[in-house]
Amino acid sequence: MRSMWTAPEHLLLASTSALRAELLTRAGLPVRPVAPVVNEREVQQRLVNQGERPQGVARQLAGAKACSVSDSLPAAYVIGFDQTLEFEGTCLSKPASKEDLLERLTRFSGRQHSLHSGYAIAKGGQVIDQGVATALVTFRSFSTGFAKSYIDMAGPSALGSVGGYQIEGLGVHLFEFVEGDYYTIIGTPIFQLLHALRTLGLIVR
Amino acid sequence: MRSMWTAPEHLLLASTSALRAELLTRAGLPVRPVAPVVNEREVQQRLVNQGERPQGVARQLAGAKACSVSDSLPAAYVIGFDQTLEFEGTCLSKPASKEDLLERLTRFSGRQHSLHSGYAIAKGGQVIDQGVATALVTFRSFSTGFAKSYIDMAGPSALGSVGGYQIEGLGVHLFEFVEGDYYTIIGTPIFQLLHALRTLGLIVR
Repeated sequence: MRSMWTAPEHLLLASTSALRAELLTRAGLPVRPVAPVVNEREVQQRLVNQGERPQGVARQLAGAKACSVSDSLPAAYVIGFDQTLEFEGTCLSKPASKEDLLERLTRFSGRQHSLHSGYAIAKGGQVIDQGVATALVTFRSFSTGFAKSYIDMAGPSALGSVGGYQIEGLGVHLFEFVEGDYYTIIGTPIFQLLHALRTLGLIVR
Repeated sequence: MRSMWTAPEHLLLASTSALRAELLTRAGLPVRPVAPVVNEREVQQRLVNQGERPQGVARQLAGAKACSVSDSLPAAYVIGFDQTLEFEGTCLSKPASKEDLLERLTRFSGRQHSLHSGYAIAKGGQVIDQGVATALVTFRSFSTGFAKSYIDMAGPSALGSVGGYQIEGLGVHLFEFVEGDYYTIIGTPIFQLLHALRTLGLIVR
């Protein structure tokens, strides 16, 4: 077992994403996934209505997810994540349909959008640390025909992410370049998380 | 089959890296791996002796690998890759032993090094396009004790990469931050490669 985790408490992941669990485990943080109990859409809408910026939404939603698990399992450390997409100052939700995704990709073509990835660490039902990392993604200029081919090839998985792409898959064909690290793009800002865990004395330093 | 490849010719990968083949396939480029016949160490040493810079070494070695496969299978398109590590102006090879790796990590602690990732596309025994992308990696300051723990936990795989780490694994514990994309760090500069394949009219645009 290649574990960097040194605390006696259990480490839980407030997420059902298999990708997140896998990469944290590979990075020496063997997490046990527990589904958070948060109505993401509702919380996001409330925060946006309160004037919260997309960065703050990601940070706070990560905290809400971690707390929802920590409330019922207070003895463990719980990590939560959330990602928001900002385009021209607006916080976008996941595309609702293929048509919606086509319209979005066409608008993104040749332009830049931001991905804000929040993390939070909770214990005893309280957030003890949280933060957010941002990546800038510049799409290359492509035709509507290309966007249609891409959506057909990517299949339903494209609707599962807010940007309509997976950088670890066909998404690379949409990009001109990216500023910011891979882990931020996939919604798991591990460098910031490890820095926090190190500061809290929970992992090997 | 989610293929972005539109040319009638076969697409070969002059590499036996399972990670490279997997990520190219996931990115819609279903490659067939063929082992290149190149004495990498010897070619690298010759290029360095000729005064070639680390960036040029990665570019040229990628070309040599692609050509070595293209020579025997001239009808196909062949992609080759190579990665070099530059630290304080010097081109480093893979660490030879655990002691060598410990010495290297200790020197890298708190400092920056560059990873140059070259790609080449060959056909008919000739390179038809090649390029190189660079990422800058800044290591956090860590103790020799940490470096030893890291090497023990990472196991033999750490010796298989020139930097002694895998960003998709425990390597994240060494980093302060990175400038440049994930694909460049893992030695497969896919954005530059896709741009070239698009320009050559070989993939869906």
